[in-house]
Amino acid sequence: MSRHFEQAPGLCEQPDAETQRYVFNHSMMRIKDPARSLDFYTRVLGLRLLRKLDFPEMQFSLYFLGYASDAADIPSDDGERTTWTFSGSGILELTHNWGTEDDADFQYHNGNDKPQGYGHIGIAVPDIYAAAARLEKLGADFVKRPDDGKMKGIAFIRDPDGYWIEILQPNMLTALSRKAT
Amino acid sequence: MSRHFEQAPGLCEQPDAETQRYVFNHSMMRIKDPARSLDFYTRVLGLRLLRKLDFPEMQFSLYFLGYASDAADIPSDDGERTTWTFSGSGILELTHNWGTEDDADFQYHNGNDKPQGYGHIGIAVPDIYAAAARLEKLGADFVKRPDDGKMKGIAFIRDPDGYWIEILQPNMLTALSRKAT
Repeated sequence: MSRHFEQAPGLCEQPDAETQRYVFNHSMMRIKDPARSLDFYTRVLGLRLLRKLDFPEMQFSLYFLGYASDAADIPSDDGERTTWTFSGSGILELTHNWGTEDDADFQYHNGNDKPQGYGHIGIAVPDIYAAAARLEKLGADFVKRPDDGKMKGIAFIRDPDGYWIEILQPNMLTALSRKAT
Repeated sequence: MSRHFEQAPGLCEQPDAETQRYVFNHSMMRIKDPARSLDFYTRVLGLRLLRKLDFPEMQFSLYFLGYASDAADIPSDDGERTTWTFSGSGILELTHNWGTEDDADFQYHNGNDKPQGYGHIGIAVPDIYAAAARLEKLGADFVKRPDDGKMKGIAFIRDPDGYWIEILQPNMLTALSRKAT
Protein backbone atom coordinates (compact mmCIF):
# COMPACT_ATOMS: atom_id res chain seq x y z
CA MET A 1 0.00 0.00 0.00
CA SER A 2 1.25 3.42 -0.92
CA ARG A 3 0.23 6.23 1.42
CA HIS A 4 1.17 9.84 0.89
CA PHE A 5 1.74 11.91 3.99
CA GLU A 6 3.96 14.71 2.80
CA GLN A 7 5.16 15.99 -0.55
CA ALA A 8 8.66 17.26 -1.23
CA PRO A 9 11.13 17.29 -4.12
CA GLY A 10 13.35 14.22 -4.14
CA LEU A 11 10.96 12.16 -2.04
CA CYS A 12 10.51 8.47 -2.78
CA GLU A 13 7.17 7.65 -1.22
CA GLN A 14 7.25 3.89 -1.58
CA PRO A 15 10.41 2.53 0.04
CA ASP A 16 12.26 -0.33 -1.62
CA ALA A 17 11.02 -3.59 -0.06
CA GLU A 18 14.64 -4.60 0.59
CA THR A 19 15.00 -1.76 3.12
CA GLN A 20 11.89 -2.49 5.13
CA ARG A 21 13.64 -4.49 7.82
CA TYR A 22 16.23 -1.73 8.27
CA VAL A 23 16.30 -0.09 11.72
CA PHE A 24 17.73 3.31 12.68
CA ASN A 25 19.75 1.91 15.57
CA HIS A 26 22.10 4.53 17.00
CA SER A 27 23.77 7.92 16.95
CA MET A 28 27.44 8.25 17.84
CA MET A 29 29.35 11.15 19.30
CA ARG A 30 32.82 11.40 20.78
CA ILE A 31 33.17 12.26 24.45
CA LYS A 32 36.14 13.59 26.39
CA ASP A 33 35.54 12.01 29.80
CA PRO A 34 33.38 8.88 30.20
CA ALA A 35 32.99 9.30 33.98
CA ARG A 36 31.34 12.70 33.46
CA SER A 37 29.28 11.59 30.45
CA LEU A 38 28.07 8.37 32.08
CA ASP A 39 27.05 10.27 35.20
CA PHE A 40 25.11 12.70 33.03
CA TYR A 41 23.43 10.19 30.72
CA THR A 42 22.59 7.58 33.40
CA ARG A 43 21.94 9.61 36.59
CA VAL A 44 20.55 12.81 35.04
CA LEU A 45 18.86 11.49 31.85
CA GLY A 46 18.13 7.94 33.04
CA LEU A 47 19.62 5.88 30.21
CA ARG A 48 21.17 2.49 30.97
CA LEU A 49 24.64 1.38 29.95
CA LEU A 50 23.78 -1.66 27.82
CA ARG A 51 27.22 -2.52 26.47
CA LYS A 52 30.78 -1.30 26.93
CA LEU A 53 33.46 -2.40 24.48
CA ASP A 54 37.15 -1.72 25.14
CA PHE A 55 39.68 -1.87 22.30
CA PRO A 56 43.05 -1.61 24.07
CA GLU A 57 45.05 -2.16 20.88
CA MET A 58 43.44 0.91 19.33
CA GLN A 59 43.13 2.80 22.65
CA PHE A 60 39.45 3.51 22.64
CA SER A 61 36.22 2.40 24.30
CA LEU A 62 32.63 2.43 23.11
CA TYR A 63 29.67 2.91 25.44
CA PHE A 64 26.19 1.97 24.20
CA LEU A 65 23.29 3.42 26.18
CA GLY A 66 19.55 3.21 25.85
CA TYR A 67 16.26 3.45 27.68
CA ALA A 68 14.83 0.13 28.75
CA SER A 69 11.82 0.55 30.98
CA ASP A 70 11.93 -3.09 31.96
CA ALA A 71 15.47 -4.21 32.78
CA ALA A 72 14.24 -7.82 32.73
CA ASP A 73 14.06 -7.55 28.92
CA ILE A 74 17.83 -7.03 28.68
CA PRO A 75 19.82 -10.26 28.08
CA SER A 76 22.47 -11.03 30.72
CA ASP A 77 24.77 -12.88 28.33
CA ASP A 78 27.29 -10.43 26.83
CA GLY A 79 26.95 -11.81 23.30
CA GLU A 80 23.16 -11.87 23.32
CA ARG A 81 23.10 -8.39 24.86
CA THR A 82 25.36 -7.14 22.07
CA THR A 83 22.98 -8.42 19.37
CA TRP A 84 20.00 -7.06 21.34
CA THR A 85 21.65 -3.63 21.65
CA PHE A 86 22.23 -3.40 17.91
CA SER A 87 18.80 -4.69 16.90
CA GLY A 88 16.51 -1.96 18.22
CA SER A 89 16.19 1.80 17.94
CA GLY A 90 17.15 4.63 20.27
CA ILE A 91 20.74 3.70 21.14
CA LEU A 92 23.32 6.34 22.00
CA GLU A 93 26.93 5.40 21.25
CA LEU A 94 29.65 7.35 23.06
CA THR A 95 33.22 6.97 21.80
CA HIS A 96 36.08 7.61 24.21
CA ASN A 97 39.58 7.92 22.80
CA TRP A 98 41.73 7.19 25.82
CA GLY A 99 43.57 10.07 27.44
CA THR A 100 41.44 13.01 26.31
CA GLU A 101 40.06 13.33 29.85
CA ASP A 102 43.56 14.19 31.13
CA ASP A 103 44.12 17.04 28.66
CA ALA A 104 42.68 20.19 30.22
CA ASP A 105 42.51 22.01 26.88
CA PHE A 106 40.92 19.19 24.93
CA GLN A 107 37.40 19.83 23.69
CA TYR A 108 35.16 18.17 21.11
CA HIS A 109 33.14 20.25 18.65
CA ASN A 110 29.38 20.26 19.26
CA GLY A 111 28.20 21.01 15.71
CA ASN A 112 26.15 24.07 16.74
CA ASP A 113 29.11 26.40 17.13
CA LYS A 114 30.82 27.15 13.80
CA PRO A 115 31.49 25.17 11.65
CA GLN A 116 27.89 23.94 11.93
CA GLY A 117 26.55 20.55 10.95
CA TYR A 118 25.23 18.09 13.50
CA GLY A 119 22.57 19.59 15.77
CA HIS A 120 21.28 17.56 18.72
CA ILE A 121 19.56 14.48 20.00
CA GLY A 122 15.96 14.77 21.16
CA ILE A 123 14.42 13.05 24.17
CA ALA A 124 10.65 12.73 24.51
CA VAL A 125 9.27 13.04 28.05
CA PRO A 126 5.72 12.66 29.39
CA ASP A 127 5.72 16.13 31.01
CA ILE A 128 8.14 18.80 29.79
CA TYR A 129 7.61 21.10 32.77
CA ALA A 130 8.16 18.31 35.32
CA ALA A 131 11.25 17.17 33.40
CA ALA A 132 12.65 20.71 33.20
CA ALA A 133 12.06 21.28 36.93
CA ARG A 134 13.90 18.04 37.74
CA LEU A 135 16.79 18.93 35.40
CA GLU A 136 16.99 22.41 36.95
CA LYS A 137 17.22 20.83 40.42
CA LEU A 138 20.03 18.57 39.18
CA GLY A 139 21.95 21.59 37.88
CA ALA A 140 21.54 20.94 34.14
CA ASP A 141 23.08 23.50 31.79
CA PHE A 142 20.13 24.99 29.89
CA VAL A 143 20.45 26.47 26.40
CA LYS A 144 16.69 27.14 26.41
CA ARG A 145 14.05 26.61 29.09
CA PRO A 146 10.57 25.40 28.02
CA ASP A 147 9.00 28.86 28.00
CA ASP A 148 11.93 30.78 26.50
CA GLY A 149 11.58 32.09 22.94
CA LYS A 150 8.91 31.28 20.38
CA MET A 151 8.97 27.50 20.64
CA LYS A 152 7.05 26.93 23.88
CA GLY A 153 7.23 23.50 25.45
CA ILE A 154 10.68 22.59 24.11
CA ALA A 155 13.86 22.80 26.19
CA PHE A 156 17.52 22.39 25.25
CA ILE A 157 20.32 21.45 27.63
CA ARG A 158 24.04 20.85 27.12
CA ASP A 159 25.79 17.58 27.96
CA PRO A 160 29.30 17.59 29.55
CA ASP A 161 30.96 18.01 26.12
CA GLY A 162 28.61 20.82 25.10
CA TYR A 163 26.44 18.70 22.77
CA TRP A 164 22.84 19.91 22.75
CA ILE A 165 19.93 17.75 23.90
CA GLU A 166 16.35 18.68 23.13
CA ILE A 167 13.72 17.77 25.73
CA LEU A 168 10.23 17.62 24.25
CA GLN A 169 6.71 16.51 25.08
CA PRO A 170 5.23 14.79 21.99
CA ASN A 171 1.64 16.00 22.29
CA MET A 172 2.79 19.63 22.73
CA LEU A 173 4.56 19.52 19.36
CA THR A 174 1.19 19.19 17.65
CA ALA A 175 0.28 22.76 18.62
CA LEU A 176 3.75 23.94 17.65
CA SER A 177 3.50 22.26 14.26
CA ARG A 178 0.24 24.15 13.59
CA LYS A 179 2.28 27.36 13.69
CA ALA A 180 4.22 26.00 10.75
CA THR A 181 2.51 26.31 7.39
CA MET B 1 14.99 -4.74 40.29
CA SER B 2 18.61 -3.72 39.93
CA ARG B 3 20.62 -5.60 37.31
CA HIS B 4 24.25 -4.96 36.63
CA PHE B 5 25.41 -5.42 33.06
CA GLU B 6 28.50 -3.30 32.86
CA GLN B 7 30.72 -1.43 35.29
CA ALA B 8 32.26 1.96 34.66
CA PRO B 9 33.19 5.08 36.65
CA GLY B 10 30.35 7.58 36.84
CA LEU B 11 27.69 4.97 36.08
CA CYS B 12 24.33 5.15 37.83
CA GLU B 13 22.99 1.61 37.49
CA GLN B 14 19.46 2.21 38.76
CA PRO B 15 17.84 4.99 36.73
CA ASP B 16 15.62 7.51 38.48
CA ALA B 17 12.01 6.28 38.21
CA GLU B 18 11.00 9.72 36.85
CA THR B 19 13.06 9.10 33.71
CA GLN B 20 11.69 5.68 32.87
CA ARG B 21 9.10 6.93 30.41
CA TYR B 22 11.71 8.98 28.57
CA VAL B 23 12.34 7.99 24.95
CA PHE B 24 15.40 8.74 22.82
CA ASN B 25 13.34 10.09 19.93
CA HIS B 26 15.57 11.69 17.29
CA SER B 27 18.90 12.93 16.02
CA MET B 28 19.11 16.19 14.12
CA MET B 29 21.57 17.33 11.48
CA ARG B 30 21.54 20.25 9.10
CA ILE B 31 21.38 19.56 5.37
CA LYS B 32 22.26 21.77 2.43
CA ASP B 33 19.77 20.51 -0.18
CA PRO B 34 16.56 18.69 0.84
CA ALA B 35 15.91 17.31 -2.67
CA ARG B 36 19.26 15.48 -2.59
CA SER B 37 18.93 14.39 1.06
CA LEU B 38 15.35 13.16 0.70
CA ASP B 39 16.27 11.18 -2.41
CA PHE B 40 19.13 9.58 -0.46
CA TYR B 41 17.29 8.84 2.78
CA THR B 42 14.02 7.66 1.18
CA ARG B 43 15.05 6.00 -2.11
CA VAL B 44 18.49 4.69 -1.11
CA LEU B 45 18.02 4.03 2.64
CA GLY B 46 14.27 3.42 2.65
CA LEU B 47 13.13 5.81 5.38
CA ARG B 48 9.72 7.48 5.10
CA LEU B 49 9.07 11.19 5.38
CA LEU B 50 6.71 11.26 8.38
CA ARG B 51 6.40 14.99 8.88
CA LYS B 52 7.59 18.16 7.18
CA LEU B 53 7.30 21.49 8.98
CA ASP B 54 7.94 24.79 7.19
CA PHE B 55 8.66 27.95 9.17
CA PRO B 56 8.54 30.71 6.51
CA GLU B 57 8.99 33.49 9.07
CA MET B 58 12.31 32.00 10.16
CA GLN B 59 13.20 30.67 6.68
CA PHE B 60 13.75 27.03 7.54
CA SER B 61 12.07 23.64 7.17
CA LEU B 62 12.29 20.49 9.26
CA TYR B 63 11.99 16.99 7.79
CA PHE B 64 11.30 14.08 10.14
CA LEU B 65 12.03 10.63 8.73
CA GLY B 66 11.77 7.14 10.13
CA TYR B 67 11.36 3.49 9.28
CA ALA B 68 7.81 2.21 9.51
CA SER B 69 7.51 -1.30 8.16
CA ASP B 70 3.72 -1.03 8.13
CA ALA B 71 2.58 2.29 6.70
CA ALA B 72 -0.92 1.54 7.99
CA ASP B 73 0.38 2.30 11.50
CA ILE B 74 1.09 5.93 10.57
CA PRO B 75 -1.76 8.34 11.39
CA SER B 76 -3.13 10.30 8.41
CA ASP B 77 -4.16 13.33 10.45
CA ASP B 78 -1.30 15.85 10.53
CA GLY B 79 -1.68 16.58 14.25
CA GLU B 80 -1.87 12.93 15.28
CA ARG B 81 1.04 12.10 13.01
CA THR B 82 3.10 14.84 14.65
CA THR B 83 2.52 13.39 18.13
CA TRP B 84 3.17 9.88 16.80
CA THR B 85 6.44 11.00 15.17
CA PHE B 86 7.71 12.49 18.43
CA SER B 87 6.61 9.58 20.63
CA GLY B 88 8.80 6.75 19.37
CA SER B 89 12.47 6.07 18.75
CA GLY B 90 14.56 6.10 15.61
CA ILE B 91 13.57 9.42 14.04
CA LEU B 92 15.98 11.39 11.87
CA GLU B 93 15.42 15.16 11.81
CA LEU B 94 16.90 17.08 8.89
CA THR B 95 17.04 20.87 9.16
CA HIS B 96 17.11 22.95 5.98
CA ASN B 97 17.93 26.63 6.24
CA TRP B 98 16.48 28.02 3.02
CA GLY B 99 18.87 29.04 0.29
CA THR B 100 21.93 26.95 1.18
CA GLU B 101 21.20 24.68 -1.82
CA ASP B 102 21.82 27.63 -4.17
CA ASP B 103 25.25 28.48 -2.75
CA ALA B 104 27.79 26.34 -4.62
CA ASP B 105 30.46 26.82 -1.93
CA PHE B 106 28.22 26.10 1.03
CA GLN B 107 29.03 22.95 2.99
CA TYR B 108 28.06 21.66 6.42
CA HIS B 109 30.65 20.11 8.74
CA ASN B 110 30.34 16.34 9.21
CA GLY B 111 31.99 16.00 12.64
CA ASN B 112 34.57 13.44 11.45
CA ASP B 113 36.83 15.93 9.68
CA LYS B 114 38.52 18.32 12.11
CA PRO B 115 37.24 19.75 14.41
CA GLN B 116 35.83 16.36 15.47
CA GLY B 117 32.79 15.70 17.61
CA TYR B 118 29.66 14.06 16.22
CA GLY B 119 30.39 10.76 14.46
CA HIS B 120 27.60 9.00 12.61
CA ILE B 121 24.19 7.37 12.68
CA GLY B 122 24.01 3.58 12.53
CA ILE B 123 21.46 1.53 10.59
CA ALA B 124 20.91 -2.14 11.39
CA VAL B 125 20.18 -4.40 8.41
CA PRO B 126 19.31 -8.11 8.24
CA ASP B 127 22.19 -8.92 5.85
CA ILE B 128 25.19 -6.57 5.63
CA TYR B 129 26.55 -8.10 2.43
CA ALA B 130 23.19 -7.89 0.63
CA ALA B 131 22.75 -4.32 1.85
CA ALA B 132 26.26 -3.31 0.75
CA ALA B 133 25.76 -4.90 -2.69
CA ARG B 134 22.50 -2.97 -3.12
CA LEU B 135 24.12 0.30 -1.98
CA GLU B 136 27.03 -0.30 -4.36
CA LYS B 137 24.57 -0.79 -7.23
CA LEU B 138 22.85 2.49 -6.28
CA GLY B 139 26.17 4.34 -6.36
CA ALA B 140 26.58 4.94 -2.62
CA ASP B 141 29.75 6.74 -1.51
CA PHE B 142 31.57 4.21 0.68
CA VAL B 143 33.99 5.24 3.45
CA LYS B 144 34.47 1.56 4.30
CA ARG B 145 33.12 -1.60 2.69
CA PRO B 146 32.11 -4.53 4.95
CA ASP B 147 35.38 -6.43 4.50
CA ASP B 148 37.76 -3.44 4.60
CA GLY B 149 39.96 -3.02 7.68
CA LYS B 150 39.78 -4.86 10.98
CA MET B 151 36.08 -4.43 11.68
CA LYS B 152 34.57 -7.02 9.34
CA GLY B 153 30.86 -6.88 8.72
CA ILE B 154 30.50 -3.14 9.24
CA ALA B 155 30.25 -0.62 6.41
CA PHE B 156 30.25 3.17 6.37
CA ILE B 157 28.81 5.36 3.64
CA ARG B 158 28.53 9.14 3.23
CA ASP B 159 25.24 10.98 2.80
CA PRO B 160 24.94 13.94 0.35
CA ASP B 161 26.35 16.37 2.97
CA GLY B 162 29.23 14.04 3.85
CA TYR B 163 27.75 12.79 7.14
CA TRP B 164 28.77 9.21 7.86
CA ILE B 165 26.28 6.36 8.13
CA GLU B 166 27.23 3.01 9.59
CA ILE B 167 25.53 -0.07 8.14
CA LEU B 168 25.66 -3.03 10.51
CA GLN B 169 24.23 -6.50 10.98
CA PRO B 170 23.37 -6.95 14.68
CA ASN B 171 24.32 -10.62 15.09
CA MET B 172 27.71 -10.03 13.45
CA LEU B 173 28.61 -7.47 16.10
CA THR B 174 28.64 -10.22 18.68
CA ALA B 175 31.75 -11.73 17.14
CA LEU B 176 33.30 -8.29 16.81
CA SER B 177 32.62 -7.50 20.44
CA ARG B 178 34.49 -10.66 21.48
CA LYS B 179 37.63 -9.07 20.00
CA ALA B 180 37.21 -6.32 22.54
CA THR B 181 38.35 -7.15 26.07
